[in-house]
Amino acid sequence: MGMNAEELQAYLVAEFPQAFGAGRPHRVVRVDAAGVGVTLAASEEHLRPGDTVSGPSMMGLADIAAYAVILAAIGPVPLAVTTNFSINFLRKPQPGLLVADARLMKLGRRLAVCEVGLRAPHEGDAPFRVTGGEELCAHAVTTYSIPA
Amino acid sequence: MGMNAEELQAYLVAEFPQAFGAGRPHRVVRVDAAGVGVTLAASEEHLRPGDTVSGPSMMGLADIAAYAVILAAIGPVPLAVTTNFSINFLRKPQPGLLVADARLMKLGRRLAVCEVGLRAPHEGDAPFRVTGGEELCAHAVTTYSIPA
Amino acid sequence: MGMNAEELQAYLVAEFPQAFGAGRPHRVVRVDAAGVGVTLAASEEHLRPGDTVSGPSMMGLADIAAYAVILAAIGPVPLAVTTNFSINFLRKPQPGLLVADARLMKLGRRLAVCEVGLRAPHEGDAPFRVTGGEELCAHAVTTYSIPA
Amino acid sequence: MGMNAEELQAYLVAEFPQAFGAGRPHRVVRVDAAGVGVTLAASEEHLRPGDTVSGPSMMGLADIAAYAVILAAIGPVPLAVTTNFSINFLRKPQPGLLVADARLMKLGRRLAVCEVGLRAPHEGDAPFRVTGGEELCAHAVTTYSIPA
Repeated sequence: MGMNAEELQAYLVAEFPQAFGAGRPHRVVRVDAAGVGVTLAASEEHLRPGDTVSGPSMMGLADIAAYAVILAAIGPVPLAVTTNFSINFLRKPQPGLLVADARLMKLGRRLAVCEVGLRAPHEGDAPFRVTGGEELCAHAVTTYSIPA
Repeated sequence: MGMNAEELQAYLVAEFPQAFGAGRPHRVVRVDAAGVGVTLAASEEHLRPGDTVSGPSMMGLADIAAYAVILAAIGPVPLAVTTNFSINFLRKPQPGLLVADARLMKLGRRLAVCEVGLRAPHEGDAPFRVTGGEELCAHAVTTYSIPA
Repeated sequence: MGMNAEELQAYLVAEFPQAFGAGRPHRVVRVDAAGVGVTLAASEEHLRPGDTVSGPSMMGLADIAAYAVILAAIGPVPLAVTTNFSINFLRKPQPGLLVADARLMKLGRRLAVCEVGLRAPHEGDAPFRVTGGEELCAHAVTTYSIPA
Repeated sequence: MGMNAEELQAYLVAEFPQAFGAGRPHRVVRVDAAGVGVTLAASEEHLRPGDTVSGPSMMGLADIAAYAVILAAIGPVPLAVTTNFSINFLRKPQPGLLVADARLMKLGRRLAVCEVGLRAPHEGDAPFRVTGGEELCAHAVTTYSIPA
């Protein structure tokens, strides 16, 4: 019922071309039992003075990674909507690539609760470490309502 | 020490040209004792399937309105950063204009806490009603850290 | 379908005797179109060093006021459960009476979203002012899931 | 500068006798590089109809575990105050013992951000797994302000 990385990327390119289409900055880079990874290649439009990635760009990345982890688990649910989104900004990220690692904390019939860690990736990274708290630049928790 | 609507608009055009510059969708429409109003003229880039305004567009609008209400109160603080942002999505907004009404709940030396109500404006609106809960499409609370 | 102040107080005494029973500190003081008011008469067990009301006591009061405003609107729903609770602590309250003013921001079929303002009451208070931000000691937003 | 498990337990018994004193339900069970563990032995006063642990009891446990992980890292800071507390309730816990595993996501000069996972412990548990999301009954994120 779920989707693998290729299916998820293709679905998001079709549904969110402005985020995942050709030349656009988001990409699915991982789907596995632990969750999903989505990257943002931050460029001019995502930066704030001081060459840091803007808050709304990070919120958009976290929101889309949370949506992706639900799609990966239960397949296309186009009407799923975010009901609650909460984020703590922990450190200023450098410009460049940001990775959002999302995992499901709860997948109920009506509500899904996801945790998302945002970090600047490093060579040799382990594939999934939401708990790499020392290096997170932001941490989000989000609730999606799943249509009946 | 604070800024009025013209000063605030001019400051944001200069600091966030990608949001407030010519042809861009954000605008300061109100600064008074109750807080500030910032609008988003939602267009193609802000929409999701179903012709509703995207969550990240609403989050960006709320974040910027919270920043604006701090600027209006204490003047330019370019290094103020969002530390926490929490939003509840209540109703799907129609495409078109969105208004964010922001007010300060606390303005301390180190932290400012702001409440933001998002709504589609109606003719004859009273100038400021965060509590118009029946009509809010989203409600956000955000904390800014103010540099020493 | 809803409940007035007397019905609500009686229901809460029966369902939460440890909070609303005889000699216990919580009480329903207002039910009207704007929402509900619930008080906590803070005593020894609710205080922290410095003679301030403890955070968990304030969280408990806000949670119960949010539950009360749902009961007031739709009548007894014993299985309603909090799914999300978020609070900002704004000022240290004095020991003594605390008032929680709760209102519904959304009452859907499955989810209710409530806003709660906590304040130390003053003589001559207007009956309901969540937006009296200058005087709030805490502000909470909470989501309840309503059973089908 | 920090505190080990014995020092932390002793400090909390002295500072919060109503929570950690003799016959009271909270206890520090772990302090290590990953964070701290605090337990609540839930009894009558913490239960709700349906024999589940009450929301406020879980919030109180999470708040105190977050405070404990800060004490463990930097030693006694009696004036540290919670500024923001956000919790998602994921599953109803059984009555009995609850464990709160807290870790620091950020320890700045002015703000500390902590993540807390609440779970019912099982025999043979690994010592620390905030990410054991499948088994968490609640997940909290909290911000403490550290006095200058």
